[in-house]
Amino acid sequence: MDDCIFCNIVKGEIPSDKILENENFLAFLDIHPEVEGHTLVVPKEHFETILDFDSSLSKELIDFIKEVYEILKKKFNSTGFNLVQNNFKSAGQIVDHIHFHILPRRDNDSRVLSLK
Amino acid sequence: MDDCIFCNIVKGEIPSDKILENENFLAFLDIHPEVEGHTLVVPKEHFETILDFDSSLSKELIDFIKEVYEILKKKFNSTGFNLVQNNFKSAGQIVDHIHFHILPRRDNDSRVLSLK
Repeated sequence: MDDCIFCNIVKGEIPSDKILENENFLAFLDIHPEVEGHTLVVPKEHFETILDFDSSLSKELIDFIKEVYEILKKKFNSTGFNLVQNNFKSAGQIVDHIHFHILPRRDNDSRVLSLK
Repeated sequence: MDDCIFCNIVKGEIPSDKILENENFLAFLDIHPEVEGHTLVVPKEHFETILDFDSSLSKELIDFIKEVYEILKKKFNSTGFNLVQNNFKSAGQIVDHIHFHILPRRDNDSRVLSLK
């Protein structure tokens, strides 16, 4: 979609710090990181939420997330991560192109998430 | 695993408020809900985190999450939801059996998540 910021990042019309890319997915650093290494994973095709996401891409998605985390783990010396995906405005979704937040964590880091 | 609380819930040895169940997955209400309708989705097989999760189950997982949310939406009049999955202790994982939190949200609800 022309007016979608993530579609434009996928097309390379908006620059991003890429972590990993394959045919159907892209991972790039969040420009407003909550933690060091905060990364967004998006499908290249535009889906709004997980409800309209083409689930035939799911295995590739999960394998991609695993691969992204292995890169982040080495790059940011993390020992764990939160995977967060928000659906619709009431859940805090700001960009209407499905995206998975990967938040690398470290032992004894100071960040306290409100959700466990 | 004998000492895993979620394995025991799957086996029915610990009671739970079930939302949905199929051959490979179970959804049940969190006993310490962060929001009304806070639900956990677990694979019946014991995996520790997403890193060792058998990704061949991913399509079924995503379809199951969609189906669970449709039930929660009707039951709790929600208009969105957060999907959260924590990996390893540093990320706040308490039970070492992979679980996805589904947090139904409503328009103008008072809950502020620290992650967007």
